[in-house]
Amino acid sequence: MKRVFNFGAGPAMLPTSVMEKARDEFLDFNGMGAGLIEISHRSKEFDAVINGTDELFRELSGIPDNYRILYVHGGAQMQFAAIPLNLLGLKPAHKAAYVDSGNFAQLARKEASRFGNVVCAASSEDTNFDRIPDFDVSALDPETSYVHITSNNTIFGTRWNSFPNTGDIPLVADMTSELLSRKLDYNQFGVIFAGLQKNLGPAGLACVLVREDLLGHALPTTPSLLDYSVYDKNHSLTNTNNTFAIYMMKLVLEWLKEQGGVDAIEARNEHKAKLIYDAIDATDFYVGSAHKDHRSIMNVTFNLANADLNDTFLKEANAAGLYALKGHRLVGGARASIYNAMPVEGCEQLVAFMKDFEKRNG
Amino acid sequence: MKRVFNFGAGPAMLPTSVMEKARDEFLDFNGMGAGLIEISHRSKEFDAVINGTDELFRELSGIPDNYRILYVHGGAQMQFAAIPLNLLGLKPAHKAAYVDSGNFAQLARKEASRFGNVVCAASSEDTNFDRIPDFDVSALDPETSYVHITSNNTIFGTRWNSFPNTGDIPLVADMTSELLSRKLDYNQFGVIFAGLQKNLGPAGLACVLVREDLLGHALPTTPSLLDYSVYDKNHSLTNTNNTFAIYMMKLVLEWLKEQGGVDAIEARNEHKAKLIYDAIDATDFYVGSAHKDHRSIMNVTFNLANADLNDTFLKEANAAGLYALKGHRLVGGARASIYNAMPVEGCEQLVAFMKDFEKRNG
Repeated sequence: MKRVFNFGAGPAMLPTSVMEKARDEFLDFNGMGAGLIEISHRSKEFDAVINGTDELFRELSGIPDNYRILYVHGGAQMQFAAIPLNLLGLKPAHKAAYVDSGNFAQLARKEASRFGNVVCAASSEDTNFDRIPDFDVSALDPETSYVHITSNNTIFGTRWNSFPNTGDIPLVADMTSELLSRKLDYNQFGVIFAGLQKNLGPAGLACVLVREDLLGHALPTTPSLLDYSVYDKNHSLTNTNNTFAIYMMKLVLEWLKEQGGVDAIEARNEHKAKLIYDAIDATDFYVGSAHKDHRSIMNVTFNLANADLNDTFLKEANAAGLYALKGHRLVGGARASIYNAMPVEGCEQLVAFMKDFEKRNG
Repeated sequence: MKRVFNFGAGPAMLPTSVMEKARDEFLDFNGMGAGLIEISHRSKEFDAVINGTDELFRELSGIPDNYRILYVHGGAQMQFAAIPLNLLGLKPAHKAAYVDSGNFAQLARKEASRFGNVVCAASSEDTNFDRIPDFDVSALDPETSYVHITSNNTIFGTRWNSFPNTGDIPLVADMTSELLSRKLDYNQFGVIFAGLQKNLGPAGLACVLVREDLLGHALPTTPSLLDYSVYDKNHSLTNTNNTFAIYMMKLVLEWLKEQGGVDAIEARNEHKAKLIYDAIDATDFYVGSAHKDHRSIMNVTFNLANADLNDTFLKEANAAGLYALKGHRLVGGARASIYNAMPVEGCEQLVAFMKDFEKRNG
């Protein structure tokens, strides 16, 4: 069985060794005679899994002790509601500021608007989100409960290289497509959330990192299973959680540790991205879609100068074992999602294919 | 590798053939060179999975065409909020009636109380939920938006044998621990919901069956990902769903079809339950906890007359490959959860163990 290089934006490829381990113990976890997916979230065996996931995450991220790790239902988009429900109450004005850097940032802002007074503090929509917009922190109303950004924009292939200093106003970041792909000073943030399905595990669950002083401010109409303090109180096991996703996350973190941790993976990610960006920049045949100063190292977006060749490019790439390179309809062209699990070899093969395709069609 | 008979209440055992199929194609679904867990929820391959799940569910359940099938985040307990948020608005009084037949019924009522005027219409708490309470439908306020019941009470081992006729007031049933374990006239219900992790698949997702005229009444503050009409509009794929759980559900439904469908599985479930209840009733050594007229065929709860023997019973059972028989702390004793996936042989071995244990300790 040959594994393809899967450039899909998510649910994304997982490291093959992780997939093999999960397969090998699928019917018999820890010699129990039952799979992890079949046992109670209250069992001592699962307890060891969730505790191990916490410990590995803390070790790999270096997140300070005053942040809690929550495993929450519904993926990142459920957080588009949970964030305002948990944080708007921090200040009486129930006000929040959102930076529109792409589709998911906008969706988050629109959902939050249903619960409070939400302003768009900056936007790059007029250039089709090809960059992170300028954001003037000094213009923020001090009565703002929080500021929301999307740290890496999966669809448009941009990222915040450094983060705004919002002072006493908590900064909230949707890091779905980049958590644990780069070093981070977690003290810059009040809350970070991420769906697992890009760098952390399978779909259906999100990880929330919340500074402990931000717990306990949920609006009265917050559904219990969106309330961070409820998750915190019960170690994310108020009800039956997605145990298999937490287990897979633990395997992914073990793998990340074997790779040398976040420092090593960030260096590798930068190398992988550079390989592809260099191939794009070396020719007029390919055109990068994101502004050079804002390029993501997780999602590399580009178009073929001759758009008529796009379908052929994608079809031939797929036949060459380079899977799911189609760009999102809002950008078109191609997108190489090269999360932590994508080997350097996958990027090298993509570059070789790009050069060969250009030679044959340029 | 020997598989245990897993009597855990959930996440519960899955059919071994389902587990084997999932394992065998874990790294390579449909010859794609990638696992199902690694591919996009927007791919044509996943589309075939979710469509196939719908079709099998309709075929096996015989649910009428005017009911929609939704796959919703968060398990059944998230529905404790979603139900009132979606249905209270059906009538101006924002009123709902709940029948307290156990722990989860009470949790559902308490969560709903946060969103509207919720009354407890009947309760069996005074007999520690050993039965389904008498419920006088004629006493319902006609301004009630819906009536909520828990059709099978996992912890206490009771079930509704037949369902109340609530007339024009929609009946909502939490069927987490029994959906597809028995034949049902779906027309009796407005909404049915069930976490997957007992009879349908792994934890982390719930299935909601909603009559189409009940869509579109969500309260204005309903988070989008709790709004049934949003799920309905986007075939449960507004955001990245728990694709692996939907896939596992499809495998479970294929297995159920191979077993002869719901008629056949119900007959087998009744046989399995009778084996254990007969063993309980044949002696004073064991004492059933549920009233005989309300006994569940999914969760068989019993105590040892001599409570001092309980720990030894559970320990020896476990050593004999009869896993997770410990009763819930609210009832004590033992609980045999014998969902669809539990083979007759597992119940036979449990009965043999019970008789042998009695012989040695009676």
